[in-house]
Formats: sequence, C-alpha cells, structure tokens
Amino acid sequence: MEFRFETEVRVRFAETDAQGIAHHAAYLVWFEMTRIDYLARFRGGYPELRAEGIEALTVEAHVRYLQPARFDDRLTIRCACADMRGARFRFDYAVERDGEAVADGWTRHACVDARSHRPTRVPAWLAEAIASSEA
Amino acid sequence: MEFRFETEVRVRFAETDAQGIAHHAAYLVWFEMTRIDYLARFRGGYPELRAEGIEALTVEAHVRYLQPARFDDRLTIRCACADMRGARFRFDYAVERDGEAVADGWTRHACVDARSHRPTRVPAWLAEAIASSEA
Amino acid sequence: MEFRFETEVRVRFAETDAQGIAHHAAYLVWFEMTRIDYLARFRGGYPELRAEGIEALTVEAHVRYLQPARFDDRLTIRCACADMRGARFRFDYAVERDGEAVADGWTRHACVDARSHRPTRVPAWLAEAIASSEA
Amino acid sequence: MEFRFETEVRVRFAETDAQGIAHHAAYLVWFEMTRIDYLARFRGGYPELRAEGIEALTVEAHVRYLQPARFDDRLTIRCACADMRGARFRFDYAVERDGEAVADGWTRHACVDARSHRPTRVPAWLAEAIASSEA
Repeated sequence: MEFRFETEVRVRFAETDAQGIAHHAAYLVWFEMTRIDYLARFRGGYPELRAEGIEALTVEAHVRYLQPARFDDRLTIRCACADMRGARFRFDYAVERDGEAVADGWTRHACVDARSHRPTRVPAWLAEAIASSEA
Repeated sequence: MEFRFETEVRVRFAETDAQGIAHHAAYLVWFEMTRIDYLARFRGGYPELRAEGIEALTVEAHVRYLQPARFDDRLTIRCACADMRGARFRFDYAVERDGEAVADGWTRHACVDARSHRPTRVPAWLAEAIASSEA
Repeated sequence: MEFRFETEVRVRFAETDAQGIAHHAAYLVWFEMTRIDYLARFRGGYPELRAEGIEALTVEAHVRYLQPARFDDRLTIRCACADMRGARFRFDYAVERDGEAVADGWTRHACVDARSHRPTRVPAWLAEAIASSEA
Repeated sequence: MEFRFETEVRVRFAETDAQGIAHHAAYLVWFEMTRIDYLARFRGGYPELRAEGIEALTVEAHVRYLQPARFDDRLTIRCACADMRGARFRFDYAVERDGEAVADGWTRHACVDARSHRPTRVPAWLAEAIASSEA
C-alpha cells in the first residue's frame, strides 16, 4: 500500500483507559480526523461536502492493533483513498510511532443526500481531486 | 437539596483513563443521561422536545469530584430540576455509590428554537410537568 | 451465527454526532460493554480477570454499519465467543433495533500479563465457563 | 484575568452531537489538553509528574458556554495556573474563536501519590516553574 498523505495525532489523556493505553475506539476517531485532513486539501473538503447537502456515512470499519499507543504519544497516520465508484469509496490507514507500526485499518464510506439519506454520487470536483491526488 | 428522582449508571471501561478511574468529563455525560431519564417521564421527554423544534442547550456546568469512580461501579445519580423561568432552567445532581458521595454538581440550560437558535420558552406541558413533579 | 447472549444499549445523546446519528466509534464501546456483560456471568467476569493480573487486549476489530442508530434508540446487542485457543479468543456481534439489523461485527482479543504485557493463557475457569456456555 | 499561555484546538467531528455543535463535555477534554500543553514547557511536564509517581486529580470543574462551537472550528484556549498551595492548584481558561468568546471556565486539582491516592505536595521543580511563568 502506497500512502501519499499523512497527518499527526497526539494521544490525549482522555483517550487512555485503565489498561494505561489508548482505548481501541479512539483509533476510529483518529482515522476520521485523518480523512478530514486528507479532504481539507480539496476545495472546502468535508465541511464543503456537508454544505452541499451531502453526508459521507461510514459503512464499514476495520482496525488491527499491533502495538499499544500511550498517553502523549505522537502518532503518524498515513492514509490513501481508493475504490471510488459512484457513491462509494474506501480509505486505508497505517498508524506509526517513530517508524514502528502501531495499527492499520480501513474504512468504507457512502455518500448520501443529507435529507433523504439516499445514496448520491461523490461530487465530480471531489472525485477528480482525489483521483489526481492518488495518481 | 431534596431529590425526588434517581437513575443508575454503570461505569464503562471506555470511560476510565490511565489514572485507573472514570475520566472527569464522563460525569457531564452521566448528568445528561440523568436529565434525559428525568424528562422521559413526561410526555415524550427530550426526544419530544426536539421533535417540537426546540433544543435545550447547556449554558453552564459545575462538578465537584469527591471520590474516584472506578470501572464497573454502580452509581446512583439523583437529580432535581429548579429555577425554571422563561427559557431557562437548572438541574442539580448528586452521585453516590453504596450511600457514599462520589460527586455532585449542577447544570444550567436554555431552550432555543432549533433553527434560529433564539431563546424560546420551555413548553407549557413540560414546565407544568416539572413543577408538579418537584412540588 | 448462533447467539446465546444478548444485552441492551440505549443510544446516549453524547454518542450522536452532527449527522444526527450515533457516531460510528460508539459501536466499539457498545461491543466492549456487551463482552463485559457476557463475562460478568462467570465468577467475577472481567473485573476478576483484571484482579488476577490479566488484561484482555483488543487486537482486531471489525464493524459493518447497516442502518443508522439514533438518539434514544434501544438496541439489542447479541454476542457469542468463539475460537478460544491459548491466549486468544474472538467475539461476534449483531446489533438490532426492533428486529431490524443495525450493525454487525467481531473483535479479536489476547490475554496478556498486566505487568509484562506478555501473552498468557485465558485462565481455565474462564475458558471452561465460556466453552460450556457456548456448547 | 491575564493569560500568558494559549494553545489551539480544532473541533473534531466525533466531538459534535445531534444539535450540530460540539458536545458540552468536550470542553473538559480541551481544558485537560490545554493544561498538558501548559505543563509540557516545564521539564517533562505531566508525563514526568506521572513518572515520579504523582497523579494530578481533577477535584472541581466549571464551564460557561457562551457561543456554540462547531465542527472544524479552530479554537484558541488560553489558560493560567493560580492558587498553588501544598497539593492544590487551579487553572482558569478562556476559549475563543477569531477573537469571539466561546466559553470560559476553571478547574481545581490536587496532587496525590499514585499508589496510596494520598495528597502530596506539588513537586518543587514544577511549583517553581509555574510561579516564575505566571509572575
């Protein structure tokens, strides 16, 4: 998997649990932040998508936890967007700390009309921006 | 402070932090659940309020943490609603575990129109139900 | 998949997001609560496991989101424990609302020594209780 | 109130709720992140404090919500540390967006021994660093 985008996350104290490590649900929040940072490079990104009356629902999520992350860790999250067709697309992620693999995963999404919740195509401006970014 | 309503909360593992205790932000979530349970006794409660186009915003919150709460603790949260006038009202809370005081606090709220976010009176059906419940 | 255990979750307001539905990370927290309820039937359950110096880490998680869950929804979460061997085991989940499938998923776990974080077998008392429960 | 320290927070999508605004419990998490950033300037900051076997418990918290914060908002959180005596200290906060007041609040804390949970003085190195920073 080739990643052309990355962002940084610092583990919050509120994200740790009584095992002394980052709670496993926090990774889905970090993946979401990574997607939002990824999309922010294109026109208005995710806020613009929502302003156009489109919601991007998460329809599937997968995480493999390889090493515990701890309070105050600086994590690098790399991501790529793939398999865009019609209303659907997929993101892949790799979480690293100082070059060590901490976790990886992927999420699948579907664009829907914000009112009707019916599937709607990814807008052309976004589909093209992502295709050219991943090319 | 006299409390005529109480509900139960069980501390989730995800709510603990690396200090081995429930994170202090979780108490605001528990207070919110207690308010929702309190209101659920009256017509449709908080969901009904939202269905009528009214949002109850939290405008102030206060918590005193007296004893740490731990994973799997069964907590009793007692609450009372007071000072309702116009768009505004206040809730007081006491959190106990087996009769021991764990925390207390209060929150203040304002009803607003869900679209305009302008203040709007607490609907009469709810104001009356609360007044008679606390009488 | 046959499920012999189920528990109830009510969607908290704090679990919703600006899409007006339960945030997708909340499902991992609900799965965790379901596991804890499942294990609570056997001796001291998960707290007992921790008291014996054993942590059950989550090493993989998967969720399929089929229908949005909304504020105040009463969800039934069914689960089963499978594939227990050595330090490892797996849980499967199905989330339903009034008989409608809302989500499903699975998580994989590994028992580790709480101090060294080295793999350690699932204690016999727990392995046997689960095996007989699922038989 | 004079603030000599500030940090930035960007509202996460996961922090919004079905009112379309940042959930009110998120502010306590942001206050915590601000404290941690504030302390990070002094020796090892909060992680160092924990490494020395000291936990800083939150014993009281107060928030006034003045304007809703929304998804992707860039917030400036200013803070100051005051009233340090013995084991106890207090932080004050102001949350702003483009110069507009969004919220303010304060938290009170007590240092305890991580094992016994008995009160213990703020270590001299930290008390002196804070005093000279606020002077």
